[in-house]
Amino acid sequence: MPARADNTEATSPALRTALGYYQAWTSHDIDKAMSYIADDIICDTPAGRLEGAEAYRGFMAPFVQIVTGAEMIAAFGDNETALVMYETRTVPVQSAPGAECVTVKDGKISYSRFIFDRAPFDAARAAGPAVDA
Amino acid sequence: MPARADNTEATSPALRTALGYYQAWTSHDIDKAMSYIADDIICDTPAGRLEGAEAYRGFMAPFVQIVTGAEMIAAFGDNETALVMYETRTVPVQSAPGAECVTVKDGKISYSRFIFDRAPFDAARAAGPAVDA
Repeated sequence: MPARADNTEATSPALRTALGYYQAWTSHDIDKAMSYIADDIICDTPAGRLEGAEAYRGFMAPFVQIVTGAEMIAAFGDNETALVMYETRTVPVQSAPGAECVTVKDGKISYSRFIFDRAPFDAARAAGPAVDA
Repeated sequence: MPARADNTEATSPALRTALGYYQAWTSHDIDKAMSYIADDIICDTPAGRLEGAEAYRGFMAPFVQIVTGAEMIAAFGDNETALVMYETRTVPVQSAPGAECVTVKDGKISYSRFIFDRAPFDAARAAGPAVDA
């Protein structure tokens, strides 16, 4: 059954997983976040495909470190699929919204399609000192 | 009531509007697409905020011209909000996915939050001849 986050999240297993994952990474808890990720996750990001949990962690961990705030814009789901859009504030980029469409199996995210705008991150990298300096 | 596109779109007024809009622009029918857009639409894009239908049309029309194909990845909605993610193929960029979260009032999109990756478009512009050449 389809469900939206604000009132009926309990009815969508996929959305419950997606929101647990979101809650973990926006709290900078990368280990908790990874507990929602399947070992054989496939994730299509703007920069290309990631395969496996270690590759996924290598992609997410640096991002989680620079996140200073986040808020959910909208979140929907049904049995197997969840679709979320959120705003984040990061050290190099003030407004960095993202959208994720995830497939959930047995409570873990097995596939993720991830969209965000790389342009302001590229610009920040070109303009300034290293983010982790 | 929340609804997902593949089976229950009729139950979400906002999703019905969002899908009508999507169907129109992916068919290159910009006039039909604009019939779903409120005169006073506000749209937050990666490049900044657009205010009003004319500004919105000025943003969408050039994009619609370069779209060669599209497919919906996921689409959900409830009474007032729809959230969609889709893949597009364009002349300069082979894979250009986007996500939109729209607020619908009286059958028209009054607010849109739009996410896509500008980086490959910037790269194509830097590398090649003008898209509309």
